[in-house]
Amino acid sequence: MKKYNVAVVGATGVVGRKMTEVLQERKIPVENFYPMASKKSAGSKVEFNGKQWTVEELTENSFNKDIDFALFSAGGSTSEKYAPIAAENNVVVIDNSSAWRMDKNVPLVVPEVNAEAALKHNGIIANPNCSTIQAVVALKPIYDNYGIKRIIYSTYQSVSGSGLKGIKDLEEGIKGCEPEFYPVQIAFNCIPHIDVFFENGYSKEELKMINETQKIFDDYDIKITATTVRVPVYYAHSESINVETKKPFDIKDIFRTYDEMKGVVLMDDLDNLIYPTPVEAAGSDEVYVGRIRRDFSIENGLNMWVVADNVRKGAATNAVQIAEYLISQGEFDK
Amino acid sequence: MKKYNVAVVGATGVVGRKMTEVLQERKIPVENFYPMASKKSAGSKVEFNGKQWTVEELTENSFNKDIDFALFSAGGSTSEKYAPIAAENNVVVIDNSSAWRMDKNVPLVVPEVNAEAALKHNGIIANPNCSTIQAVVALKPIYDNYGIKRIIYSTYQSVSGSGLKGIKDLEEGIKGCEPEFYPVQIAFNCIPHIDVFFENGYSKEELKMINETQKIFDDYDIKITATTVRVPVYYAHSESINVETKKPFDIKDIFRTYDEMKGVVLMDDLDNLIYPTPVEAAGSDEVYVGRIRRDFSIENGLNMWVVADNVRKGAATNAVQIAEYLISQGEFDK
Repeated sequence: MKKYNVAVVGATGVVGRKMTEVLQERKIPVENFYPMASKKSAGSKVEFNGKQWTVEELTENSFNKDIDFALFSAGGSTSEKYAPIAAENNVVVIDNSSAWRMDKNVPLVVPEVNAEAALKHNGIIANPNCSTIQAVVALKPIYDNYGIKRIIYSTYQSVSGSGLKGIKDLEEGIKGCEPEFYPVQIAFNCIPHIDVFFENGYSKEELKMINETQKIFDDYDIKITATTVRVPVYYAHSESINVETKKPFDIKDIFRTYDEMKGVVLMDDLDNLIYPTPVEAAGSDEVYVGRIRRDFSIENGLNMWVVADNVRKGAATNAVQIAEYLISQGEFDK
Repeated sequence: MKKYNVAVVGATGVVGRKMTEVLQERKIPVENFYPMASKKSAGSKVEFNGKQWTVEELTENSFNKDIDFALFSAGGSTSEKYAPIAAENNVVVIDNSSAWRMDKNVPLVVPEVNAEAALKHNGIIANPNCSTIQAVVALKPIYDNYGIKRIIYSTYQSVSGSGLKGIKDLEEGIKGCEPEFYPVQIAFNCIPHIDVFFENGYSKEELKMINETQKIFDDYDIKITATTVRVPVYYAHSESINVETKKPFDIKDIFRTYDEMKGVVLMDDLDNLIYPTPVEAAGSDEVYVGRIRRDFSIENGLNMWVVADNVRKGAATNAVQIAEYLISQGEFDK
């Protein structure tokens, strides 16, 4: 079996570490492993497949070697600078930052939804925003079977979405310490503020969910709005999703579809108090769907509650799944 | 100045204690104070206006004395049994349980919205569900100025809404203890389950928000759906509210209206990261409104984020405000 040379850029961050873990868990055949990070983390060690690998400093020369693909999770400005350098060196970049997502020449890929789009890359493939990924996986069969007219997202996002700083603010916050990263206390609080705000009153996270959903479905007629909120949860984002479909649906068919769908775990048995929660979904690569019910306020309305581990399916796992798809398509055998 | 004889039924619970506190804070002129509770709490003491009052056991004879009004917060079955007994004894009951809310002969009152309805009582006035109260206060000017076609509620509700047991589950849960009240861990989790579930997939809390909103506005044409979720917050509920108005609006007018509205605190200055959070709203009698912005997915769409202390405005304060209104209308002077 062919083995691949793989880099993880931002290897010491929350998502970078998880990428390394998921590459191993999913048994991606790796020959050489190149963990990379900024100068301050260079020299530290990362374990991968039972071996210690030294983190190298990311520089303009980092990709002057035989690397098949690089998973980037090192922030927008790093991706803006280094992803094109990697691509020029024939390294396929799967980038977790928001830098390239809306670029017309960069596919934005969730394998369950639009895997084939990945093949149209020009060296860079973007991994969508965490809250978008889990939403579109859940919405995919609805879109295919009934069409989607409008979506209203309200999110309940965990602190790991902010990286180690967010996790620390919650850990210290429950002991009564002041926040160092969030502008207000996150412990025992909800903060309706994720990423920066724009003139129109939306946060960047909200606009990401709107724009990325349209791009992934390649359908700019879907009407979407969003309210994104940080909650005192360590891992896994939850979403209250309200959907208006184009065609009528039978709610039992929707249950049946999710029950059979790969990548989705249906947890919806209210008699036995079965519904998804972030604690349940944390540590899993699947998207959990529950509280599925008709929205009686419009003709073709549907409510659901969608939960997934934001560091796994919302970031690391989705990136690795894109790599798996490329491997399955012989992308690196050329 | 006339003074009133006041009972608090369920005086030792989270809401009952707060009712006592709020009666005092708002300087309701009280002559005799009668804290009542179940047998197991009878005999304990409650401080009110600098005096210790003995909690008496609630019995069928508890209202055989000169009481002007009784604030009930002792659960549905207690209200079902004792509110009519109190009413027969000419005690005006302001009941915080869900027992009487949808009864056609019982007004459901939020003073900022439909104070006058209180005057049509037949001895019992219902205090709405906590999550409904804060929503309708925020929606009132929207309803009056533009009409409301449809509402989509997604809530972020604090554990104090479940009383002392909910608070304890969070306090102990962050230390790693198993939950005793909630079916799953609430610490660092979100539970899309408040009150019991019905056949149609909705929780009772969700149906309360739908039905009570219509009753308070006395408008059964408003289309409403809801997803209600418990979050690891001690005090104050938050709500992501999406509204479709009948008439077009100017977003600046909405800001101006909230800025001037009694009972509402407008916190919406994104340049300075000003938005409401539960920690900010806790301990206050007001409804906090922020993140107000146009929902571009429909013609007349509006998103907002509404936060209020569920034990205060969502329960105790609203009940006391109903009493204040009745006093102002000379209800007990007859």
